Amino acid sequence: MSFDYINALLKKPVSRTPVWVMRQAGRYLPEYRATRKKAGDFLSLCKSPDLACEVTMQPIDRFDLDAAILFSDILTIPDAMDLGLYFTEGEGPKFSKPITRLADIESLSRPDVGSKLAYVTDAVSVIKKSLNGRVPLIGFTGSPWTLSTYMVEGGSSKSFSKVKGLMYENPKHMHQLLDKLADTIIDYLNGQIAAGADSVMVFDTWGGLLSKKSYEEFSLRYMTKIVNGIKRKHEGKIIPVTLFTKGGGMWLEQIAASGCDGIGLDWTVELGDAQSRVGEKVALQGNLDPCVLYATDEKIREEVKALLAQFNGDTGHIFNLGHGISPDVNPERMKTLVDSVHEFSTNK
Amino acid sequence: MSFDYINALLKKPVSRTPVWVMRQAGRYLPEYRATRKKAGDFLSLCKSPDLACEVTMQPIDRFDLDAAILFSDILTIPDAMDLGLYFTEGEGPKFSKPITRLADIESLSRPDVGSKLAYVTDAVSVIKKSLNGRVPLIGFTGSPWTLSTYMVEGGSSKSFSKVKGLMYENPKHMHQLLDKLADTIIDYLNGQIAAGADSVMVFDTWGGLLSKKSYEEFSLRYMTKIVNGIKRKHEGKIIPVTLFTKGGGMWLEQIAASGCDGIGLDWTVELGDAQSRVGEKVALQGNLDPCVLYATDEKIREEVKALLAQFNGDTGHIFNLGHGISPDVNPERMKTLVDSVHEFSTNK
Repeated sequence: MSFDYINALLKKPVSRTPVWVMRQAGRYLPEYRATRKKAGDFLSLCKSPDLACEVTMQPIDRFDLDAAILFSDILTIPDAMDLGLYFTEGEGPKFSKPITRLADIESLSRPDVGSKLAYVTDAVSVIKKSLNGRVPLIGFTGSPWTLSTYMVEGGSSKSFSKVKGLMYENPKHMHQLLDKLADTIIDYLNGQIAAGADSVMVFDTWGGLLSKKSYEEFSLRYMTKIVNGIKRKHEGKIIPVTLFTKGGGMWLEQIAASGCDGIGLDWTVELGDAQSRVGEKVALQGNLDPCVLYATDEKIREEVKALLAQFNGDTGHIFNLGHGISPDVNPERMKTLVDSVHEFSTNK
Repeated sequence: MSFDYINALLKKPVSRTPVWVMRQAGRYLPEYRATRKKAGDFLSLCKSPDLACEVTMQPIDRFDLDAAILFSDILTIPDAMDLGLYFTEGEGPKFSKPITRLADIESLSRPDVGSKLAYVTDAVSVIKKSLNGRVPLIGFTGSPWTLSTYMVEGGSSKSFSKVKGLMYENPKHMHQLLDKLADTIIDYLNGQIAAGADSVMVFDTWGGLLSKKSYEEFSLRYMTKIVNGIKRKHEGKIIPVTLFTKGGGMWLEQIAASGCDGIGLDWTVELGDAQSRVGEKVALQGNLDPCVLYATDEKIREEVKALLAQFNGDTGHIFNLGHGISPDVNPERMKTLVDSVHEFSTNK
């Protein structure tokens, strides 16, 4: 197994800068689209451990990646809380029973991960077997704040008026909701770790829409609870945890203080700046603008080289995009990205 | 005339912290919805100086605001460049002739502001007469980068893949487009100043989606050109200029170096932090989370008080939201906001 990904997170020596890409198992790959067609719809794909394994492996078979990431969705938890998750083509996720009253929060159950989310931990086991030690497997979750936005808005949102209204008007109930989510997420990640996940990541997609004060109180506080609540060691190995808040570039110091091992950076942050701010404390993952993949191979190589050059030192950087790869990217450009990271970092 | 708004931007003494609100003339007001109905559609409303004046005055008549802002749209310039702007209900702006080929950029004409955009400068004149010195009038424009995103994407976008593809692939053409836009904007703002605008503001709605390097090269560079290119004095008065990059909180030092008088802040930045970073150089406008207006009057007052307390000193702060007011806000909450800013800042 290539340990570069885990070693970079733990700041141990690496042979070269490891690279993986958010949404590397996704729509830009024709083989993914074929599997999804076979599954029928997106949720069925997530809920079939074998098909989830199939798509998880596709980018690993095609590119020289240093980590695999469990194929799943961040909304599995609210789904297990019986909010009635469904997807409509081109419109994103929706809930048939969103949280509309304060009483909904009080009556919300903490789902039993071992039964209601067994399809996720089963997928982890199947993928681990299929990977057979080739590269480490990353498990993941949405952050409590991010999950709560979908649960209260009833799906995606532009203004986040409902969830922020709740936050400003009834902070006590908001905390109750977030705390229930954090507890469930701890069970969920521990389940993934027990099933074989070598590392876990928390995606805080919407934390960047908060003020600093609200971010600390309603998002980071619960991610910190998760960092402290999950098993950071399993079968003698350290399980590193990475926090990624999109739009959180101003709050890296606060995120680093959570006790996480790595911070995911979006592309608006300068990697070199981020390193001088928090590089002593944590590893950094990121952070090429995903739109660079619309450029020529030559330009991609140039941008990869420039980004690698921003990072000082031999370990502590995991190369990634600053956000998920877009569905309309040509897979050949992805290959150029992955190969050039290795080419330019081997003899760095 | 209350000069607090202008004086705060120029860091001269003020009687109390001035306040205005982005999109204060907008859909949350029933009288605005009535005028818009009368106009037929949004573009007709923008293009009628009398109706634009009517909606500009509505919030001034209703609330104790310290500035009026010209009612218009940021896309008037691409419209004047013959890209065929139209609006479809609930879908946002679109262009029937977006920029799809590099040749489109070369052939793009610099519109004559005095004729093609006369409806805007006429609106400024009509509004100035109607205001009759009650409060200053703010003129505005979209930033070159922000306008270019709509022009290349053909409307709103989520991924900005086309415009960023152009930027990474053909930076030379991208610069050509941005330079043409900056030149036109200089004419446009000078036209507004000549017609009576007391201050101007540049809205860089999408600059925050760039990396720092790209922001400096493709957005800030052209806003700086505008700051240096417009008439900063008119009829013996200084015309202050404010730059607002949504999501630009990490780059305040760079923005301040443009030579602008004020920086607009979104709500993700801490006002106190921003002041300690750039407060010596520029005035600061902002930056309450617009979603606070979904809370009770009591909570709004509390948040206003806390925000005012973050700012040290007696001048240099213009109170505002960190983004436009949402259409579903109750106008009574807006009144609470405006009144509490004055109440808590008078004897600060």
